Amino acid sequence: MAVIDLKRKPTGDSASLDRLSDLVGEDLKAVNALILERMQSPVAMIPQLAGHIIAAGGKRLRPMLTLAAARLCGYTGERHIGLAACVEFIHTATLLHDDVVDQSDLRRGFDSANALWGNKPSVLVGDFLFSRGFQLMVDDGSLEVLRILSHASSVIAEGEVRQLVTSNDITTNEEDYLEVVRSKTAALFAAACRLGAVVADRPLSEAEALGRYGRSLGIAFQLVDDVLDYSAHQAELGKAIGDDFRDGKITLPIVLAVQRANDEERAFWKRCLEDMEQDDADLERAIALIQANGALEDSLAQARRYADEALRSLSVFGHTPERQALMDVAEFCVERAY
Amino acid sequence: MAVIDLKRKPTGDSASLDRLSDLVGEDLKAVNALILERMQSPVAMIPQLAGHIIAAGGKRLRPMLTLAAARLCGYTGERHIGLAACVEFIHTATLLHDDVVDQSDLRRGFDSANALWGNKPSVLVGDFLFSRGFQLMVDDGSLEVLRILSHASSVIAEGEVRQLVTSNDITTNEEDYLEVVRSKTAALFAAACRLGAVVADRPLSEAEALGRYGRSLGIAFQLVDDVLDYSAHQAELGKAIGDDFRDGKITLPIVLAVQRANDEERAFWKRCLEDMEQDDADLERAIALIQANGALEDSLAQARRYADEALRSLSVFGHTPERQALMDVAEFCVERAY
Repeated sequence: MAVIDLKRKPTGDSASLDRLSDLVGEDLKAVNALILERMQSPVAMIPQLAGHIIAAGGKRLRPMLTLAAARLCGYTGERHIGLAACVEFIHTATLLHDDVVDQSDLRRGFDSANALWGNKPSVLVGDFLFSRGFQLMVDDGSLEVLRILSHASSVIAEGEVRQLVTSNDITTNEEDYLEVVRSKTAALFAAACRLGAVVADRPLSEAEALGRYGRSLGIAFQLVDDVLDYSAHQAELGKAIGDDFRDGKITLPIVLAVQRANDEERAFWKRCLEDMEQDDADLERAIALIQANGALEDSLAQARRYADEALRSLSVFGHTPERQALMDVAEFCVERAY
Repeated sequence: MAVIDLKRKPTGDSASLDRLSDLVGEDLKAVNALILERMQSPVAMIPQLAGHIIAAGGKRLRPMLTLAAARLCGYTGERHIGLAACVEFIHTATLLHDDVVDQSDLRRGFDSANALWGNKPSVLVGDFLFSRGFQLMVDDGSLEVLRILSHASSVIAEGEVRQLVTSNDITTNEEDYLEVVRSKTAALFAAACRLGAVVADRPLSEAEALGRYGRSLGIAFQLVDDVLDYSAHQAELGKAIGDDFRDGKITLPIVLAVQRANDEERAFWKRCLEDMEQDDADLERAIALIQANGALEDSLAQARRYADEALRSLSVFGHTPERQALMDVAEFCVERAY
């Protein structure tokens, strides 16, 4: 197992998305305006609920990847705006359906849409947003784009079901977990990046390099997300933790902790995650166990490996600010764990 | 208000889908095989749940419309098979999400998927089936087809939210109700029919005629569906009734009954459908009220008018067995109420 230095820092200053934001800032404004325009409907509940989830939607990482990848490929047109918006619509639809499935009351510290409006509108507005994303792709008019995004949508949905099947099953192994992550998270990252090469009409080698970059980045991103849910440091910062634990989701920290558990610990995991009998002190014990047996560290080492793979995928491109911005993203995805 | 003869019979024998089934039977076998192929996934829960809902999916009316419309337009290729399967995937995805929204335990007398597997798989497998439908359209490769179906998907999702907004609201009027029906039901009927002219590369006038036929047919179909849910005759036949009542859905029989209600009756509707306080005898009283004030009869008269409009839309086509089969469908949709 790789030994990692938990104090490792990125070269230079602390990793951030600043360079990316500077590079695609203007494009992102256009994307946000387009999202706002396309989420409208005479049915008032739709823009209300969609506005809530889109506002709570965070960093717009996925559409920024499409924008930066297009620029990296020398693209100077406008198609990347519509496709970036489309990627965000697909992502947002997935979030809405995730929250119904998880019965989450919070998303990134805000009340989740299903807590505010109920499950029914969340399911149906998710469908609406997905359809709007679909219309944006059709407006783009490229069958290659449509193939990439329809395939990604199908893989994502399959991954979501796969995740559900592994829920509450502590016999889930590392490969099962990675297959969930590859499909439910990394497929959209890969598609978002690949689209950059497609709109710029670049050779297949570049499209594939960007696809590999996105896929590895997505896996690293999800691994760190899953680690952060058990991070004592996050808790100190006042951020919500323990959602996955309360949902009985089997993420890599859990897979590794269960593999390394003694009989008594295994009974603990079984009670908490399979039988879903949890009391207030259990999350704290879970965090302690995951840290004690190195499961958190080893999960982060995996994330680091995928981030490094993402960096290597960019080697086919020349040294440009765009390439550096995408490299920053890979560093950022891992460094935010510390 | 039109006076209708509730004993009215279609010309000739009792209306049926036999002619349609005979005409498109071979094509429909190919559609069913394609559906079975495309619903597969290494994630076992997907074909299990999808197989259940697709098997319970009934008559395959929508894909049969695509098949018959294509034949009516003289089409001799194979594209209509994939598109008919796609239409059924969209329909099935909608059914799965409907049942989650309605919290239905039964669908056409079978246990519903969400009753058997729970809400979560129903939401996610619905997403999967929609994505598979989307891939089928992309495989077809026509941007015009993609435009028609992406637009229809968006309108359907909007209609589903619209229906949710009118639920439990007894101030809903006839136009609100019709707007729900036009979007949630008729949009897919219209698209399914229109595709027939598109694959056959027929002039816009024929595509629009088939679109109008499908739209009117869809409205007639839904009106009759909504009437049947309050039909004493259905109850006598052992069929499930009262689902809409128990869900607090505001369909045309309710809209009309509420409009014609005295104060005491209005209080009854408010208690049952807005406050959702129902006891065992309420459905019987609801049926009695709807029949006594002519709401059922007038709803059926509306269905008849839309069916007649569907028939008129076909007048641009010559007298062929295909046209007759589509005319039969319009008769069937209304006659099944009796």
